[in-house]
Amino acid sequence: MKIDKGIEDVNVSEFDALLLTGGYSPDRLRADDRFVEFTKEFMDSKKPVFAICHGPQLLISAKALKGRDATGFKSIQPDLEYAGANVHDKEVVVCQNQLVTSGTPDDIPAFNRESLKLLAE
Amino acid sequence: MKIDKGIEDVNVSEFDALLLTGGYSPDRLRADDRFVEFTKEFMDSKKPVFAICHGPQLLISAKALKGRDATGFKSIQPDLEYAGANVHDKEVVVCQNQLVTSGTPDDIPAFNRESLKLLAE
Repeated sequence: MKIDKGIEDVNVSEFDALLLTGGYSPDRLRADDRFVEFTKEFMDSKKPVFAICHGPQLLISAKALKGRDATGFKSIQPDLEYAGANVHDKEVVVCQNQLVTSGTPDDIPAFNRESLKLLAE
Repeated sequence: MKIDKGIEDVNVSEFDALLLTGGYSPDRLRADDRFVEFTKEFMDSKKPVFAICHGPQLLISAKALKGRDATGFKSIQPDLEYAGANVHDKEVVVCQNQLVTSGTPDDIPAFNRESLKLLAE
């Protein structure tokens, strides 16, 4: 995927939703405060946020999970619990009509289904 | 490094210390309960544990950090805090004469110095 804008060039108000993909990219992004702040602002905006596999690591750094229903890749589930999330062992978790999370690539069909549902509202 | 024994073939009582290295290996190991349990037993044994960069992720999964002084790679510092650790921005942190942690490869000299000190006791 071609990246057409850097983090310095974007503003939360320009977007309808935020997609946080998995792999080890979130580990790198969360080490940079600009991405953490952008994620926090997006959660505060109440606009939809979709996070799968290791994607929710950015939500931990943004301190945006307290009391939220969520899931994530098995290795980060202890981190999600410590961050105050109610962690569910389900293929997809939708919280407060804003946050959609899934744990593995196998869950992508359910993750996409619920994410598109929120985007269509 | 050649691995000469699998996790099923080892017992905490056979070792003097546990070294948890960084990179993305800890993320994979912590997804397997056998490695988490081994780490927990090592912490419970009070024998030395040395963890650098992403190594402390295994200590989070082992729920072994509550009230402990520690550090780790910047990206996992929020996880360490949520897990109840007192996180210090130092090149090396030694806690209760058992646990030695560092955050980056640059800290290896200090990490080795304090780890070897504990091993010599």
